[in-house]
Amino acid sequence: MDKLIQPKILKGFRDFLPNAELKRALLMETLTGVFRSRGFVPIDTPVLEYSEILLRKSEGETEKQVFRFEDNGGRDVALRFDLTVPFARFIAQHKEELYFPFKRYHIAKVWRGEKPQAGRYREFVQCDFDIVGSDSAQSDFEILSMMKESLSAIGVENITIKINHRGIFNAFLAKLEIKDMSEEVLRTVDKLAKIGEEEVKKLLTEITGSSQKAQDVLTFIAGKSDFASTLKLIGDMAGESEEVHSYVKRMQDIHSLLCAVQIESNFVLDPSITRGLDYYTGLVFETFLNDLPSIGSVCSGGRYDNLAGLYMKDKISGIGSSIGLDRLVAGLEQIGKIDESLCFLDAIIFCSDETLFTHYHVVAKKLRESGIKVEVFLENKKMNQQFTLAEKKGIPFGIVIYEDQSKQNMLTLKNLKTREQFENIDIATAAKTLLEHR
Amino acid sequence: MDKLIQPKILKGFRDFLPNAELKRALLMETLTGVFRSRGFVPIDTPVLEYSEILLRKSEGETEKQVFRFEDNGGRDVALRFDLTVPFARFIAQHKEELYFPFKRYHIAKVWRGEKPQAGRYREFVQCDFDIVGSDSAQSDFEILSMMKESLSAIGVENITIKINHRGIFNAFLAKLEIKDMSEEVLRTVDKLAKIGEEEVKKLLTEITGSSQKAQDVLTFIAGKSDFASTLKLIGDMAGESEEVHSYVKRMQDIHSLLCAVQIESNFVLDPSITRGLDYYTGLVFETFLNDLPSIGSVCSGGRYDNLAGLYMKDKISGIGSSIGLDRLVAGLEQIGKIDESLCFLDAIIFCSDETLFTHYHVVAKKLRESGIKVEVFLENKKMNQQFTLAEKKGIPFGIVIYEDQSKQNMLTLKNLKTREQFENIDIATAAKTLLEHR
Repeated sequence: MDKLIQPKILKGFRDFLPNAELKRALLMETLTGVFRSRGFVPIDTPVLEYSEILLRKSEGETEKQVFRFEDNGGRDVALRFDLTVPFARFIAQHKEELYFPFKRYHIAKVWRGEKPQAGRYREFVQCDFDIVGSDSAQSDFEILSMMKESLSAIGVENITIKINHRGIFNAFLAKLEIKDMSEEVLRTVDKLAKIGEEEVKKLLTEITGSSQKAQDVLTFIAGKSDFASTLKLIGDMAGESEEVHSYVKRMQDIHSLLCAVQIESNFVLDPSITRGLDYYTGLVFETFLNDLPSIGSVCSGGRYDNLAGLYMKDKISGIGSSIGLDRLVAGLEQIGKIDESLCFLDAIIFCSDETLFTHYHVVAKKLRESGIKVEVFLENKKMNQQFTLAEKKGIPFGIVIYEDQSKQNMLTLKNLKTREQFENIDIATAAKTLLEHR
Repeated sequence: MDKLIQPKILKGFRDFLPNAELKRALLMETLTGVFRSRGFVPIDTPVLEYSEILLRKSEGETEKQVFRFEDNGGRDVALRFDLTVPFARFIAQHKEELYFPFKRYHIAKVWRGEKPQAGRYREFVQCDFDIVGSDSAQSDFEILSMMKESLSAIGVENITIKINHRGIFNAFLAKLEIKDMSEEVLRTVDKLAKIGEEEVKKLLTEITGSSQKAQDVLTFIAGKSDFASTLKLIGDMAGESEEVHSYVKRMQDIHSLLCAVQIESNFVLDPSITRGLDYYTGLVFETFLNDLPSIGSVCSGGRYDNLAGLYMKDKISGIGSSIGLDRLVAGLEQIGKIDESLCFLDAIIFCSDETLFTHYHVVAKKLRESGIKVEVFLENKKMNQQFTLAEKKGIPFGIVIYEDQSKQNMLTLKNLKTREQFENIDIATAAKTLLEHR
């Protein structure tokens, strides 16, 4: 006999056992329901694409992390590392077949060869939703309000969505003449919570060569106590220009819409939110669970003005958002928002008498015809083994049928949690009882 | 500006546009519903595994087709080419965490570098369901009846599931002393429809060295007109042995169960069904759409007695089935069983007056609170463009709100198919009308 192969998986990859997979699946189904009910449609793209398509825009860091190889046909291919680049390629390729504004969602796996660490995996699921071919306050609002609705749908009301406008931010940097140093400035500002304002100011002064500029950056980033005054502050600090006016107007319009549907209390204008540097051009946002802000943003994104510029001449603008599904599941588990009873069954028919096998399946059939979800235990095992399986699967009711009962089409129903028994009832009564207990 | 990159995908891979993806998604959701209602639970495994794990058992042909490469860490890895090998590894690795009989389903993508041709893709979705840790007629029946129920659930009643028993077949070959040539014999028998009985008999005589054996093979394969007499024929031809008796008994038990729940008319005992040579040891089966038998089996599988033998010493038996989702979708489309109206929305609110943007979203919110699924057109575009989008998406109703209506919270509802109008109705009436038209 051949030597056994040690069963193992690659570092940074995961198996999902039934309960973990069900949790993830139910979350995706709830999100899908919200997306569809607002007119978003799904697409799918290949997991594997030409490296040239996927990697052109990416910087060195991404390139190092990507699973890239030569296929048997000598093609340079790679596993997608996000859903945005394939989406951009998709839009360029299928522009003529789509209708705009195009609202799509895509929930699928992506791969990155990152150093595995707590909460970081090499294979994970992303959930993206975008509106492309539209540059309106309504589209910005649609994405924001759908984020709020999606989280409500999975039972999470206590959230803060921090929003900002990249255009205002960029204009402010330009006015201070520190746009070249923006990356460094941002990285420094990000350390505020860690090293404190004094230290950050010192560093910013070094970078910008001016303590006044350092102070301006800190004032801008800090904002004010409410939406309107923060918007006024950053608009003023970004300088007088038609562009800045239009950005401020956009933020006002978005805020009006949020107020009109009474969800504005979940939104905060936070000038420190910038979402990296290159890609976004308008509204940007991040979402935090108020009961667990430490896990970071569970849903982020922003407006871009040239999605598919690598692949076509036409500029196509849009707004997109991405839910980090793994992080969200982890967060929901920590705050107790994930249902632990993940059973779809009403009952299990135990197998207590080998000669009644066929009868069990006939009873199961009749129960199913009454809308009952039932499985039959498929082996003639000891009763305690059968009970253990029912318990592990979280099945609420057990059905036992003895030989004398079988002749009268009667059965005994047991509530496996409370131990309550319904003895010697007929199938219709059992179905009724089970439906009442759902 | 950089040169544009031609947007294209790899040969044998596919983009799914919204309608195609929705069809596939709805099919998967229906199947998932059936699986769950019978107590099957989902698992997930990595797309990428050690090549050693995936390829040990496979023959040269699979190895050539697999996407295999060295990752950045120097590991020899491959994309899974089916869901069975990862499942075997999963069972060996997580045996202690599972409960048996373990009933799992797994719907996911697999990859094979096959020569792309009509209906053959390098990336496709498999839908597997297995019961492991059980060797009973009940488990065999459970898989068969769930296959029948799954196809019923997607609207296909007119099917034939051909079943056979590999044990009986093997005993028959052994008795004829042609087990060594079984591969060649099978390959020849497969040509029956193409080259006719006479020609096949000639070839079989050459292979087995005996015209009697050739005739026996043909008699065995042909079977009889009904289940019982076919079973008697092949049982007799396989010879007297305890093993053969137990196989015949198993087939009788399975048949009794099928009869008891009145689905036996969809099942045929067909001794020519063998499902390759190595893996299966008991019941084997293939499923055909009676209205389109030419596309081949849409759901196949069988019983195995040592699923995870490469990875652990314990033998674990089970039975599994796999639906070829792409083939099934293609088949359903050809026989008109796929719904073409794939819209989840009840209505779209058209944007006819820029000053009413906010009002549109407030109305949408109120309609949603009444359970209506509605989207708002997000741009101030010409009405015919808005109508075209609604039509393309298959949205049944349009809502128009004029300025004077907005003040009274009234609206006009248009049935976009029949052109019927409901003029100047309030939001509650609109919601009621929309629900009635579902």
